[in-house]
Amino acid sequence: MEQILPYGQLKTFTRDVFLKMGCSAGHAELAAVVLLSADLRGIDSHGVARLSGYVRLWEAGRINPTPDIRIVHETPSTAVVDGDGGLGLVVAPFAMQVAIDKAKIAGTGWVSVRHSNHFGIAGYHAMMALEQDMIGMAMTNASPLVAPTFATERMLGTNPIAVAIPAGEQPPFVADFATTTAANGKLEILQRKELEAPTGWVQDKDGNASTNPNELKSGGALLPLGGDREHGSHKGYCLGSVVDIFSAVLSGANYGPWAPPFVSFLPLPPDPVGKGLGHFFGAMRVDAFRPADDFKSHMDTWINRFRNAKTVEGKEKVLIPGDPEREMQAYRMDAGIPLLGPVMKDLGEVAKKFEINF
Amino acid sequence: MEQILPYGQLKTFTRDVFLKMGCSAGHAELAAVVLLSADLRGIDSHGVARLSGYVRLWEAGRINPTPDIRIVHETPSTAVVDGDGGLGLVVAPFAMQVAIDKAKIAGTGWVSVRHSNHFGIAGYHAMMALEQDMIGMAMTNASPLVAPTFATERMLGTNPIAVAIPAGEQPPFVADFATTTAANGKLEILQRKELEAPTGWVQDKDGNASTNPNELKSGGALLPLGGDREHGSHKGYCLGSVVDIFSAVLSGANYGPWAPPFVSFLPLPPDPVGKGLGHFFGAMRVDAFRPADDFKSHMDTWINRFRNAKTVEGKEKVLIPGDPEREMQAYRMDAGIPLLGPVMKDLGEVAKKFEINF
Repeated sequence: MEQILPYGQLKTFTRDVFLKMGCSAGHAELAAVVLLSADLRGIDSHGVARLSGYVRLWEAGRINPTPDIRIVHETPSTAVVDGDGGLGLVVAPFAMQVAIDKAKIAGTGWVSVRHSNHFGIAGYHAMMALEQDMIGMAMTNASPLVAPTFATERMLGTNPIAVAIPAGEQPPFVADFATTTAANGKLEILQRKELEAPTGWVQDKDGNASTNPNELKSGGALLPLGGDREHGSHKGYCLGSVVDIFSAVLSGANYGPWAPPFVSFLPLPPDPVGKGLGHFFGAMRVDAFRPADDFKSHMDTWINRFRNAKTVEGKEKVLIPGDPEREMQAYRMDAGIPLLGPVMKDLGEVAKKFEINF
Repeated sequence: MEQILPYGQLKTFTRDVFLKMGCSAGHAELAAVVLLSADLRGIDSHGVARLSGYVRLWEAGRINPTPDIRIVHETPSTAVVDGDGGLGLVVAPFAMQVAIDKAKIAGTGWVSVRHSNHFGIAGYHAMMALEQDMIGMAMTNASPLVAPTFATERMLGTNPIAVAIPAGEQPPFVADFATTTAANGKLEILQRKELEAPTGWVQDKDGNASTNPNELKSGGALLPLGGDREHGSHKGYCLGSVVDIFSAVLSGANYGPWAPPFVSFLPLPPDPVGKGLGHFFGAMRVDAFRPADDFKSHMDTWINRFRNAKTVEGKEKVLIPGDPEREMQAYRMDAGIPLLGPVMKDLGEVAKKFEINF
């Protein structure tokens, strides 16, 4: 049965789980904050619902709770970070901070990461740049679930991109999206509700268009943004590929179909081409281009103009990227986070395993 | 009537037109090479078919044939370039070279450009990085033709993104695509053939789905990649917005609906928020992340694996971004460039105006 838990209670519980996995106090606190930023922002598929998945990866020996995260190569504006098999939830903020520190001196900073794991929502990491008057970018490769245009094989992950841009009086512009038509979490919602998927979200194992949300269970695949060739799926395939290459080929992580799966019941792909998952982060100081106040004032103009664009009938306003998530965060920080029955059950089992109150 | 002209002949003619507009010999040659790279690569909508459009912009006083292109602000890894109202075809290679020069020292270089004009195909500029073992990126804002999700107003251009990535034995990965479902040139082809457009390409003036390729002439709009909300158009809207902000808000160019139109018969939008059009370029030295040979060898593995992915029935292979354009370039460099009747007529009029042989 669905329940609503206060953010503070859920954060303490999540932190305690990471502590039981052997994480340091600092890492456990950070991992909890990063993971739950998804629940706060309404991206329920990437938040605490995945906690038991992280626990199973740890049980399978695929997560190192005490990683030695370090820079293995650098130039004035770049670095490669090795996550030492740690939680992406702590490796990613480390790497994003390196990008920010580089940007302070060189104007921009760009960090590719290898030997990491899933890092929660890309938006959290990109938004770290905002308080420094920087533009932040974050992307990651992920479990192969997506078929390139014309393919039946799953070669790419949902490979999200986040871009966070500061404004002045307006809230920041925060785009955070999978490079597929729809993320896997949306299919899971349809499965639970026994509804069909719109065309362009999935294909069957032979590459035929399908509306069956269970298609991935029988060899089907998610589709790149665009859905099919006629609607620009080759562009979504390009985007997902660029994310894969920046995250994993630049850093020395596993790319394409070699990306390690998030679910622990799937074996790691044989003959790995690198180490772990890969991420890519960027930070650009706004005043490396023009005075920060000028930039932010023009961002206010941009946002105001777009927010007030004429709408189609029935739509109140044009949304600015980040609007819905920010509103959800304000609401849930106060009202609590709703958890579906299966998630409550899952968390109960994790609590029992680690003998933590829940 | 369609005719096929040798590349060399078309390049000499195009260069002579730019000379007659008052460009220097160097600028005229470069502008011709950049413009015709579109025709060579099979992107006919962006090549010599637009030459008369550039001439009309020059006649309207909107192109400065002798620009003083210069860096107006810089840090170790960034610069802002002012194009002084010049042809984007010469401003863009200047700015991309600045990015490449910065990358040589700082690892990466990022250049935002203001006061420019249309720059041909983004791919040309991104590919300049390849011979330096760098990843190249190029993007630009453009005439407002695209309605954000839920809007009826045209707020964004087709705002293309190009990413060029070097490989070893394989040809490079070169993605170059508009952030809309389809570019305007594809609608023009349907208009000429009197065919309907697929759904998701355009909407009518009230924001209703439409298959009429002439919709833009009666207040309709192009749609962001994804087409509608259910198919991820908010992601295409995010991408187009990021291109707009990086190209124009960072540099001080006109953004969103203030972007100057390419067609000279439309007046410039009142109350400009910046100068001219904007572009954004990036160059990342591959060996700022890992040894270049390692990277290129893994890119070969990436490309081989994707090219040999299992295909849907009836498709011979999965394409790597840049494959079709490279094959077309090899073919047309040898066989010549086909020009449609209306384009031939247009070029004949340009020749007559400037008293050049054609």
